[in-house]
Amino acid sequence: MIHYAEKYKQELIQRVLPFWENNSVDKKHGGFFTCLDRQGRVFDTDKFMWLQGRQIWTLSMMYDKWDSYQPWKEMAICGADFILKHGRDAQGDWYFALTEDGHPLVQPYNIFSDCFAGMGLGALYKITGADEYAEVARQTFSRILGRRNNPKGHYDKGVAGTRGLKGFALPMILSNLALELEHILDPSIIRELTDEVIHEVTEVFYQREYGLIMEHVQQDGTFSDTFEGRLVNPGHIIEAMWFMMDVAYRKQDAPLMQRCVDIAIQALEFGWDARYGGIFYFQDILQKPMQQLEWDQKLWWVHLEALVCMAKGLHYTGDERCKVWFEKLDAYTFPRFSDPKYGEWFGYLTRQGEPLLTLKGGKWKGCFHVPRALLKVYEALTAYEKRS
Amino acid sequence: MIHYAEKYKQELIQRVLPFWENNSVDKKHGGFFTCLDRQGRVFDTDKFMWLQGRQIWTLSMMYDKWDSYQPWKEMAICGADFILKHGRDAQGDWYFALTEDGHPLVQPYNIFSDCFAGMGLGALYKITGADEYAEVARQTFSRILGRRNNPKGHYDKGVAGTRGLKGFALPMILSNLALELEHILDPSIIRELTDEVIHEVTEVFYQREYGLIMEHVQQDGTFSDTFEGRLVNPGHIIEAMWFMMDVAYRKQDAPLMQRCVDIAIQALEFGWDARYGGIFYFQDILQKPMQQLEWDQKLWWVHLEALVCMAKGLHYTGDERCKVWFEKLDAYTFPRFSDPKYGEWFGYLTRQGEPLLTLKGGKWKGCFHVPRALLKVYEALTAYEKRS
Repeated sequence: MIHYAEKYKQELIQRVLPFWENNSVDKKHGGFFTCLDRQGRVFDTDKFMWLQGRQIWTLSMMYDKWDSYQPWKEMAICGADFILKHGRDAQGDWYFALTEDGHPLVQPYNIFSDCFAGMGLGALYKITGADEYAEVARQTFSRILGRRNNPKGHYDKGVAGTRGLKGFALPMILSNLALELEHILDPSIIRELTDEVIHEVTEVFYQREYGLIMEHVQQDGTFSDTFEGRLVNPGHIIEAMWFMMDVAYRKQDAPLMQRCVDIAIQALEFGWDARYGGIFYFQDILQKPMQQLEWDQKLWWVHLEALVCMAKGLHYTGDERCKVWFEKLDAYTFPRFSDPKYGEWFGYLTRQGEPLLTLKGGKWKGCFHVPRALLKVYEALTAYEKRS
Repeated sequence: MIHYAEKYKQELIQRVLPFWENNSVDKKHGGFFTCLDRQGRVFDTDKFMWLQGRQIWTLSMMYDKWDSYQPWKEMAICGADFILKHGRDAQGDWYFALTEDGHPLVQPYNIFSDCFAGMGLGALYKITGADEYAEVARQTFSRILGRRNNPKGHYDKGVAGTRGLKGFALPMILSNLALELEHILDPSIIRELTDEVIHEVTEVFYQREYGLIMEHVQQDGTFSDTFEGRLVNPGHIIEAMWFMMDVAYRKQDAPLMQRCVDIAIQALEFGWDARYGGIFYFQDILQKPMQQLEWDQKLWWVHLEALVCMAKGLHYTGDERCKVWFEKLDAYTFPRFSDPKYGEWFGYLTRQGEPLLTLKGGKWKGCFHVPRALLKVYEALTAYEKRS
């Protein structure tokens, strides 16, 4: 698999990170532009907090793990200064979006902005040692825990008590965040959140009948035959499975590791488009019509996280199915998503595999999934080759 | 055009209304199921207030204008009893969704549910003379006017004062609602809202440079180069233009009438997909990448409202361009959206014109646009033929 490792490394260093270095830094106001067209030109100047935090994280992580390349650190600091100056409301909650010059634009209506801000600042502390970053990351983490039972606050449109499904996204991101902030949090918090997410994944959200994890279940973990309850997000399951593989590796929990591989492969088989290839964005577990009009589209992050998951599965277990799926995914993904002309990856393809939008970054796509996945595939395949 | 009129009438009476009569009534709890699959089977039981109100309106309107067919009236009453019993919160605002047995599920987070509930009850009052329907319709209208400057209340995620764009949807629906409730409202309210919407459409939302109406503009009517400000919804423009044609006809305002025809044709030309035919769901006025992943899809209501608009344009003005466009739209629309096997129309097609979802009704599609449009096309073309 070493030629794959080399390909992913070249893509990361030669054609993905330079795209963000060259195009996304706002030299006037600080922070990052993420709405970049195919060529890298800024087509909109709004600044989305998810993507500010994620880019700070990516740059800091690359500096930490790959190369102490000074511009990465400087860019990360430039992003952090901007969000620290403008990003929070009076309660310390992170806005969803700011204008280019830092005016608050969209309220803190959920806690994912907070998760990525905390994640970014935690990573930046690691490479700078500057206490302010650690301090705000810790405060943010504490606010997230405080808000976790009512993360949308008064923006929640559901009537309390009528349906009350629980969502898979929150425990997943909390466990990931806890691991990312390991260096600044109390170890007992990490243990507690890690054990909780193992329980949630394997006992609550996992549905034995289908061998899959649902996005929403009833409070006791039973299936809900409703639009939200029927929803399967194959990419989300697969991404969660590599988070869990990392947990299983830390705990040296072989049965959990095997279960992660099995669930991920089940999700790939369930989500694969037999007609055109690629992984569907959404599916209904009972094959009923869906609310999501974008259900049949092929998204960059789904395919990248699947590549990471199969590379890690191969590295951790040697399971041959992971190798077969990795190669199948690579053959589908690279020629369609990677842009040989201007660098970075397309984000949104039609079911047939043509670009639906030609943007390289937008409201939800920034400097995160592509570089993270390329690095993690490289690391996993390199480690696999060393062992074999 | 008389053979078109006949075709639309047959479709309405033989194959669309029976679909809803046979499949949507909840005989146990009252109200209507709207989540119906291709064959008409209920695939989800949640009840969405937009669609409850709209179906009451459609059935009452058909009884009033087409045929005093008793089952239509009884079904409309069955719907009204359900929403009057379960549909409002303590302030009298209409929930967005209820469970099948009437428990509130989604809060009144905007005022469109209220608009359609009021519209339905107003129409039902017309065919029953029962005071309660008129009374609640009037109360609802009054609450809508009271909430119009802050229609989302505390569910609004925008930070006040930062951007503050105004939306085209609200003045449009208010003017339409005022006309629908003409028989129970003070005439001065109708005049005021009608004049207001003419001003908003022709002076505020209309952008001379493009000859189009934007979905969102700055408070003074200037263009906003933001995701929301760049958004064009061709179907919404075209639907608005036939509302406005009806207003121009009432006022015998020939310049306004001509302007409506011109804008509608401009929107059709702008929104038409030269490659596969049909009208795009969304476009960016500057051709920048959009947020809406469903932008290239072909939606039932867009095409139906365009048919209504061109039929009315032809009837009111005799403009030959309307005839050409009507025939082009008919040739695209009927073979792709109408389901010869099970009746009713598909709602969502891919860009290529294949069904993306096979549902006949769902969270946003019910017994409304298809029957309303079929009837209005029939009426307009019949009137056109009589005159010519």
